[in-house]
Amino acid sequence: MPNGQQRIIIENIQPLVDGGLYPAKRTVGEKVEVRASIFADGHDHIRASLWVRSATETNPAEILMVPTANDEWQASFYTLKQENYFFSIHAWIDHFDTWYDGFKKKVAARVDVKVELMEGASMLRQLSLEKPELILWATKLEDSSHYAEAVASVLSDEFEKIVYNHPLKEIFTTSGKELEILVESKKANFSTWYEFFPRSSALDAGRHGTFRDCLKLLPRISAMGFDVLYFPPIHPIGKINRKGKNNNVRAVAGEPGSPWAIGSDEGGHKSVLPALGTIEDFKKLVSEAKKMGIDIAMDIAFQCAPDHPYVKEHKSWFKQRPDGSIQYAENPPKKYQDIYPFNFETEDWQALWQELLSVFLFWMEQGVKIFRVDNPHTKPIPFWHWVIAEVHKTDADIIFLSEAFTRPKIMESLAKVGFTQSYTYFTWRVNKSELTNYMKELVQGPSRNFFRPNFWPNTPDILPYHLQHQAENSFIIRYALAATLSSNVGVYGPSYEFYENTPIDGKEEYYNSEKYEVRHYDWKKTNRMTDIMTMINRVRKENTSLQSTWNIQFCEVGNDQLIAFLKATDDLSNLILVVVNLDPHQTQSGYIQLPKERIGLADKINIKLYDWMTDEHYTWIQEWNFVEINPHKMPFHLFQLSIHQSHM
Amino acid sequence: MPNGQQRIIIENIQPLVDGGLYPAKRTVGEKVEVRASIFADGHDHIRASLWVRSATETNPAEILMVPTANDEWQASFYTLKQENYFFSIHAWIDHFDTWYDGFKKKVAARVDVKVELMEGASMLRQLSLEKPELILWATKLEDSSHYAEAVASVLSDEFEKIVYNHPLKEIFTTSGKELEILVESKKANFSTWYEFFPRSSALDAGRHGTFRDCLKLLPRISAMGFDVLYFPPIHPIGKINRKGKNNNVRAVAGEPGSPWAIGSDEGGHKSVLPALGTIEDFKKLVSEAKKMGIDIAMDIAFQCAPDHPYVKEHKSWFKQRPDGSIQYAENPPKKYQDIYPFNFETEDWQALWQELLSVFLFWMEQGVKIFRVDNPHTKPIPFWHWVIAEVHKTDADIIFLSEAFTRPKIMESLAKVGFTQSYTYFTWRVNKSELTNYMKELVQGPSRNFFRPNFWPNTPDILPYHLQHQAENSFIIRYALAATLSSNVGVYGPSYEFYENTPIDGKEEYYNSEKYEVRHYDWKKTNRMTDIMTMINRVRKENTSLQSTWNIQFCEVGNDQLIAFLKATDDLSNLILVVVNLDPHQTQSGYIQLPKERIGLADKINIKLYDWMTDEHYTWIQEWNFVEINPHKMPFHLFQLSIHQSHM
Repeated sequence: MPNGQQRIIIENIQPLVDGGLYPAKRTVGEKVEVRASIFADGHDHIRASLWVRSATETNPAEILMVPTANDEWQASFYTLKQENYFFSIHAWIDHFDTWYDGFKKKVAARVDVKVELMEGASMLRQLSLEKPELILWATKLEDSSHYAEAVASVLSDEFEKIVYNHPLKEIFTTSGKELEILVESKKANFSTWYEFFPRSSALDAGRHGTFRDCLKLLPRISAMGFDVLYFPPIHPIGKINRKGKNNNVRAVAGEPGSPWAIGSDEGGHKSVLPALGTIEDFKKLVSEAKKMGIDIAMDIAFQCAPDHPYVKEHKSWFKQRPDGSIQYAENPPKKYQDIYPFNFETEDWQALWQELLSVFLFWMEQGVKIFRVDNPHTKPIPFWHWVIAEVHKTDADIIFLSEAFTRPKIMESLAKVGFTQSYTYFTWRVNKSELTNYMKELVQGPSRNFFRPNFWPNTPDILPYHLQHQAENSFIIRYALAATLSSNVGVYGPSYEFYENTPIDGKEEYYNSEKYEVRHYDWKKTNRMTDIMTMINRVRKENTSLQSTWNIQFCEVGNDQLIAFLKATDDLSNLILVVVNLDPHQTQSGYIQLPKERIGLADKINIKLYDWMTDEHYTWIQEWNFVEINPHKMPFHLFQLSIHQSHM
Repeated sequence: MPNGQQRIIIENIQPLVDGGLYPAKRTVGEKVEVRASIFADGHDHIRASLWVRSATETNPAEILMVPTANDEWQASFYTLKQENYFFSIHAWIDHFDTWYDGFKKKVAARVDVKVELMEGASMLRQLSLEKPELILWATKLEDSSHYAEAVASVLSDEFEKIVYNHPLKEIFTTSGKELEILVESKKANFSTWYEFFPRSSALDAGRHGTFRDCLKLLPRISAMGFDVLYFPPIHPIGKINRKGKNNNVRAVAGEPGSPWAIGSDEGGHKSVLPALGTIEDFKKLVSEAKKMGIDIAMDIAFQCAPDHPYVKEHKSWFKQRPDGSIQYAENPPKKYQDIYPFNFETEDWQALWQELLSVFLFWMEQGVKIFRVDNPHTKPIPFWHWVIAEVHKTDADIIFLSEAFTRPKIMESLAKVGFTQSYTYFTWRVNKSELTNYMKELVQGPSRNFFRPNFWPNTPDILPYHLQHQAENSFIIRYALAATLSSNVGVYGPSYEFYENTPIDGKEEYYNSEKYEVRHYDWKKTNRMTDIMTMINRVRKENTSLQSTWNIQFCEVGNDQLIAFLKATDDLSNLILVVVNLDPHQTQSGYIQLPKERIGLADKINIKLYDWMTDEHYTWIQEWNFVEINPHKMPFHLFQLSIHQSHM
């Protein structure tokens, strides 16, 4: 038998991932809305409270929950400390409140309430054990010689507050084991990434770039407002079966190879390519970047070139073929003979896992705080679950970005087991309904509690069809969308800034991809894109509403080429309205509906708009407002909103 | 560390109620579709199987699962025995199948496959440990002097079957603890209820009916095709504060009172009202009914009249008021002074629970197999969870019908914790969209796994607005809908058959409700309603497709007054098409779309229709077909469909 006096059912608690198998994720300072279905038999009044504490607190705070509709209750709290939080729900029948409600109805129906007064007094006496001042009220109710006064005192406003503020909690039900909220750093939710190949960092043409060259680019990256600088792998590149320009099967002499073919006689995952410099140079770069507020993100690609030291030292970590050769990567009939994947089904998997963990720990010792993981979906998900937890035991602030462009369930699973951020399908979401539906899926769907998107308009692997052979407006529009829809954003930088738009025919691959060669950019050059990126990144930094992906509200617009959305902080102190013309060629116009209710406006509207991009001011006094965007002037508005309260 | 060689994730397993907190429900012979998300890293081929066994089996059967879309897999089984079933999922990387797929692609691309043949042979040798005949195939692949023949043998149809039929299961992942399916009797899913007050059973007017009178009505009920006869409470009725005609606060002498005010000096929940007869009479009635295939359903109303023996014997089971009186039922300011509710928060709750359990056990000893529970939502849900489980330990076939017309979450919770069937909102779902949406919610929503609807067009408590002052067609339409939409159906019988349609003004209550008086029906009379109910009930009995609620498919009809739906068995051997004119007054017509795909038809259509109600035959040779229903002839079609396969 359970405890038969407990009559309350608490179920369907949110936020929860897979019924509690994984914690829901938040970042420090974020709001956690807790919801649950809470009900009991009969018509007695229920009260419920949320008990919440951070990991280092022992006494939970108690927050009264409020009913919404259909037996749903809610309460919320903010993750003020960067610690995991734990919560549970308590619910009980409040006989005092039930009695009070019945009392009022009976008095209204002119029913005698003498016995009810006695019942109320008895409950007040019970409550007075903790609040002695309530004895006075009990005495009033018990004074049978002043019936009318006693009734009046129960009907007073003061009494209503007593009932609300002094829940009578006798028998209560709890939701059981505390549920966990994983709280991560602010940067997990708000980061601005720039990617370049360090070998292409030389300011003077004709030579291989080095970490020292990269040092000289830091001021440029910083001035543009980026706070993560992500490098493709910096390790020695395999010499055996090295790939040539445009993915040729064999490199010719002097070709640098793909940095993702890791390892040679010069070392493996814990070494740097000598042509880039030394580990000391890298550490210097990491610490100089940090001074400018930039984290260097390291690429982790767990695979080996045929001449990687692991291949000799740990033959059992690779699959042997019947002819004695080692299994190279393949996607039949395609062969990738410059890459040996690890065989995670090896009997020696424990040593393999430990070694891979040690790679993370090694680079953390060099100052790295962010890892972009290459193709995590081709290594076992349980491995990521384990290794991320192990890394977080050493430093809970480490950020992992999952580069898995694959099926939805696998991308989601990687996020559940610990990846902090994830690449997304944004890269291929182009028109208004695609963008709107995708954002709603991310923000309102169940993945909101574990999948943090990072929007990339391009990567070294992907020149999407809609950017191929396109001019600057297409590039501007896609960055503006990425950086305002999502608080985590990144670009494969110089290629994007300088509008590289030539693909290999029929593919989404760059022609003359930098993956297989050293490039020389005119790093001193800036252009319209550079300026716009710089302004967008500045606006993101100065407006907290753009530092969250979860606070978006789309606005109705009577034109499918215009997309408009509001980003608002919980307290409405910061409001940004973004309006983008999705058509890079033509002027588009339409009426936009202000989301009045979301920003707490009644009928009187008086809103000042300041466009950060054009330095123009507008005033809106109606719900529907005309907007016209000439993309050749600027393809989007980035409005700061301020509400002028009208005084009657 | 988990076992690092296991790379598969199995999640989102269905059917499951509240993450496994409660078992999913089926009845014997029903299909269970098991679904799960199953995936792993990389591109290796996955295979998965469902392991299923009934409670008395120790060795599970293994059924291969098939992938559908988006990493979802499924397999199904039938609950052949009336025992609970247990299932789990096994999934593994099939290296043989992965190899086979790559082999075919490589051969197609004219890649040399010598090493691949050796790999295949090695896997065949591994498989031959269980299937020795595979050695022959291994030898073929190993014969390097006949390369072309070896390749050809792998590409043969025979080899494809070998790969499919001999999954190579090395390292596998299981879904963990077995999940349970609660399997109940066929009657849990298919029952036809008739309710009358036994005190109104006398064939001759002017006297209180008895169980012996009820005996004489059995042939009538049986001829109409009902298999459950449900009586309001048959216990002694309280004499203190007894209610009079039309719910008058006080009865006058000779008035019988409400049977739900249980208990008097004549006994309580384990006694019968002397005016109805003796317990022996009741047992006789139960056994005679059983011979005709009818179960007597007993009403369980856990509440007491002020003179119930419990009130004296177990004062602590009731709430005492400060003036020494016992708390009567109330819904402030309304008082129900003829009813004392139990106080389930009593310190003596264990004795109370045991006593209430003993009430069920007592009536089971008298032969009762079905309990209709009055207002279960005013008693603690955890009590029902416990008491139903306890009853089922004695007899797993006992059926509980939950009479909870309340908020959705509470109705659902009662079903989750064990109620076999539930009253529903059907009583108030009238127009086409209401009916369609409600059915979709019941059949496609999560409650499908635990909430078995029982559709009632009326009850002694509810004369719904849409039947008030209406003529026979309205009654016919509502029974036809209830009995074909839902496989469990019931009516408050004589009142419905004889079209009682007078309410208390403005309420959904019957005027001169039988709850407070003895009625005299002309039980020898039959009418159009009687005949139609009889035919509908016969068609239900003869057509297995009408014996499930879960197999419904709505058809498009170009007229909102016509509702049409197909009921089909899994094997399509039994097909019923129901078309109802929701307008009781006017002829309505429209085109109905045959759900071609559901019944496995391609372009050629040749369907014979037989209307059970009018004995008419039709042939349909097109997808869209004209139907016209004159409600004064018959407000609905009940078509038996037979498909004539056209031979080319």
